[in-house]
Amino acid sequence: MKYLIIILAGLFFTSCNNNSSKTNSESNSKMVLGAPESVISTTPNADSTIKGPLSYAPDIPAVQDGDTVVVKFDVRHKLFHAKSDVAFVGWLFGDSLPGPVLHIRVGQTVKFSMTDRSNEPMPAGMVMQPMQHSIDFHAGMVNPADKWRSINPGETISFTWTANYPGVFMYHCGTPMVLLHMISGMIGMVIVDPKDGFPGKVDKEFALVQNEYYLKPNGNIYSPDTTLAMKKTPTFVAFNGKPGQYVVHPIHVKAGDRIRLYLLNAGPNNASSFHVIGTIFDKVWIEGNPKNELEGMDVIDLAPAMSAIVEFVIPEKGRYTFVDHSFADAEMGAQGVFVAD
Amino acid sequence: MKYLIIILAGLFFTSCNNNSSKTNSESNSKMVLGAPESVISTTPNADSTIKGPLSYAPDIPAVQDGDTVVVKFDVRHKLFHAKSDVAFVGWLFGDSLPGPVLHIRVGQTVKFSMTDRSNEPMPAGMVMQPMQHSIDFHAGMVNPADKWRSINPGETISFTWTANYPGVFMYHCGTPMVLLHMISGMIGMVIVDPKDGFPGKVDKEFALVQNEYYLKPNGNIYSPDTTLAMKKTPTFVAFNGKPGQYVVHPIHVKAGDRIRLYLLNAGPNNASSFHVIGTIFDKVWIEGNPKNELEGMDVIDLAPAMSAIVEFVIPEKGRYTFVDHSFADAEMGAQGVFVAD
Amino acid sequence: MKYLIIILAGLFFTSCNNNSSKTNSESNSKMVLGAPESVISTTPNADSTIKGPLSYAPDIPAVQDGDTVVVKFDVRHKLFHAKSDVAFVGWLFGDSLPGPVLHIRVGQTVKFSMTDRSNEPMPAGMVMQPMQHSIDFHAGMVNPADKWRSINPGETISFTWTANYPGVFMYHCGTPMVLLHMISGMIGMVIVDPKDGFPGKVDKEFALVQNEYYLKPNGNIYSPDTTLAMKKTPTFVAFNGKPGQYVVHPIHVKAGDRIRLYLLNAGPNNASSFHVIGTIFDKVWIEGNPKNELEGMDVIDLAPAMSAIVEFVIPEKGRYTFVDHSFADAEMGAQGVFVAD
Repeated sequence: MKYLIIILAGLFFTSCNNNSSKTNSESNSKMVLGAPESVISTTPNADSTIKGPLSYAPDIPAVQDGDTVVVKFDVRHKLFHAKSDVAFVGWLFGDSLPGPVLHIRVGQTVKFSMTDRSNEPMPAGMVMQPMQHSIDFHAGMVNPADKWRSINPGETISFTWTANYPGVFMYHCGTPMVLLHMISGMIGMVIVDPKDGFPGKVDKEFALVQNEYYLKPNGNIYSPDTTLAMKKTPTFVAFNGKPGQYVVHPIHVKAGDRIRLYLLNAGPNNASSFHVIGTIFDKVWIEGNPKNELEGMDVIDLAPAMSAIVEFVIPEKGRYTFVDHSFADAEMGAQGVFVAD
Repeated sequence: MKYLIIILAGLFFTSCNNNSSKTNSESNSKMVLGAPESVISTTPNADSTIKGPLSYAPDIPAVQDGDTVVVKFDVRHKLFHAKSDVAFVGWLFGDSLPGPVLHIRVGQTVKFSMTDRSNEPMPAGMVMQPMQHSIDFHAGMVNPADKWRSINPGETISFTWTANYPGVFMYHCGTPMVLLHMISGMIGMVIVDPKDGFPGKVDKEFALVQNEYYLKPNGNIYSPDTTLAMKKTPTFVAFNGKPGQYVVHPIHVKAGDRIRLYLLNAGPNNASSFHVIGTIFDKVWIEGNPKNELEGMDVIDLAPAMSAIVEFVIPEKGRYTFVDHSFADAEMGAQGVFVAD
Repeated sequence: MKYLIIILAGLFFTSCNNNSSKTNSESNSKMVLGAPESVISTTPNADSTIKGPLSYAPDIPAVQDGDTVVVKFDVRHKLFHAKSDVAFVGWLFGDSLPGPVLHIRVGQTVKFSMTDRSNEPMPAGMVMQPMQHSIDFHAGMVNPADKWRSINPGETISFTWTANYPGVFMYHCGTPMVLLHMISGMIGMVIVDPKDGFPGKVDKEFALVQNEYYLKPNGNIYSPDTTLAMKKTPTFVAFNGKPGQYVVHPIHVKAGDRIRLYLLNAGPNNASSFHVIGTIFDKVWIEGNPKNELEGMDVIDLAPAMSAIVEFVIPEKGRYTFVDHSFADAEMGAQGVFVAD
């Protein structure tokens, strides 16, 4: 029998590091550990549209009110264009790569459901075996063998989890071979606001998910290649799924704007040295947690699956290129531009 | 002539960062810098058993009382099975790979001795040249050209060093070609408690050392291969020396347990993105020093030779897989399981 | 029309993380964002000597007085010996690789000019196409499309920028293919002191820039190779441009000295695990900013383009080797020695 443990986190923190002058307001609130057993049904969700506080990066959806948030997205096998001339059959959460950004706050319980639609018909000429999939939310504290378990094609899994810590967290498919599922597109970001929101005011905010592609030609399209992925030698590196997309279509900001970026390096293998040319990060919150604050940094190191929130000011009108300063990655597509009008 | 410098660390800290509200209780205590000259004898230690506050990971030995701790382990050339079907002649501290975990506290002086037993007979069929070896304790503050120097086969080196900083530190052989000595097995962990122990109470604690193997077939066994190691392309990646061992033989914990892990990435080359699926690190102490505290992290980046202590709660009954989330490493063996009954 | 924005940084910080007990003295001072439009002329600087608070690493020049600092160095194509038997036509800032260390303090405005001398005659037998170059100071907050823009051979660019944050910052050529310009030598360090200098007293201080070489034989010299650089597989790794130079010619210090190192990993691709054998970093300032302080670390992780300031004590007379503990890098030349007399 599965069960819920609800405890005062304060109990865990009584012998907290007494050299620290930080307060643990977050940790004094209730933590919710575990959740009722997941349910698997053979009924697909009514339709394949995404539902909940979700949007595709760089957009960030609004947080919903209330203690419970209903969230639904499905898995589909679908042709995905990483570049105009580079397509492959992506295994996608929702409709894109990365999957939709989920935005919640500490204390909210996510009522989640997902149908594995890999058995549904694909366009003529596209071939991909139906297969098991799953989802692992790094922001959740539950038994992965239950909630993050694999479902069969056509099945729907439903479970809940509660956000205990603020920050930026990865989600991804956890079905073996996990590496293959990740390089086929099954990655995404969860943003968890502190109970009272992130401190400070900003003018604009964007979500950026970095990922590596490992692709080899396969007829007139491409296939994700585990041999390349095991060697950690990507063919392309992208922000929000499309190498160099924001060089061609820059993100528009204004001189003097204070910008907040929610950054996730989905990897799956290599670190990112994130940098915005022409400015300096006034604040960096490691893993997106305001308690982990660094200041005055020009580069932030994001190991695979790690995240950060960074804030900076656009100094004057101009073009501010952002890159992974592990510069071969930038040359492979990990660059984009903020244009300040 | 070698000599001891004993000074009040306080002298160094008088103009300490005045923006910081941290107290330097640790650094106000005496630091011991340097140590008497090491002694090399041609007499081997009486037997090859390990002696002192030592145990093999994931176990952590108890700290001993007193200001001086006698520690002894030897170097042996011995067949080591990384996997049931992958053996090579390891160059081992003590009896295993990684070598034994040494557990001491700040202020304790380690009286260390080690015999190079590489000249002792090996089982029939095993061949390995006797050779020089050495040991470099990252936790020590002494002249490496003296204490960490190489000794000849059959010789015994004796020296002392004192722990000045709390944390988790690597030790390894420092004899050229150092990279070859490390990939042949000569790595291990030292845990240094603060004078009054690490703050906070936990239910269970474990030591995990991550390392990369660079092996090529050599007859019916394998050999460490420096060509692969110079390319940083491992054949396997392991926790505590055996890829995937804790998938087959999980580590048992209980729902609700607060767990503390002492983590070391011995490398020798690649970073680790350490993550426990299904939970979040409530505290992270970078390099194992409680003053370097981060909170609410799902992943901790461990560069080669770096360490951390992480604490987390097991949310409910289940299986919690820990991985290096640079996911090719997980696929190469850097994964294990906590089973919560 | 370009323009200057001068604002009270305090405005940005009004809703600063209220969990933090840090004061923002730095950020309360005026920040200077943007700068007048750069000027490009066809007149070369009068001569090719470097001018300003500049010196070649490991030396650190004195900070100059005053609010404005005149700085001048040019770009030259020049034979550079990475090792006695490994030379290539370097694209150099000033006269060496890395380029000169620039040392300023927060609030100072740098009046910078640089001539692209790649069209000037080279010694007989040396061939290198004249080409566009540029400079991107990570310490500056200005429009990169203006100040960091590429100039033609023979042209001189002049612009100003103001240091807003203390720390250690990279500069490099930003002309495409950026990766090629960096592996050809166009990298360097800027040190920005806090307004009142870095806190604390030290006995000696040195600058160390780590970089990777990607070289292939080209007749009797070598050429930087972008194929190797895109694979992130270096041929050599160096401190201050010459692999192993400080093993042959150690840096001299004294037992008991408190040493401060200004560290920059110029990359361009791989992380560095910086370690000094035989001692422990008493303080680490991530990115060189005293507000980002960690303590008691034996290793500091420097992602490409990242920096740190570390301080440590030399425990006793001896030889203290410093390495990149991603040990293949050390074997490729990323090591040096402090000799304590």
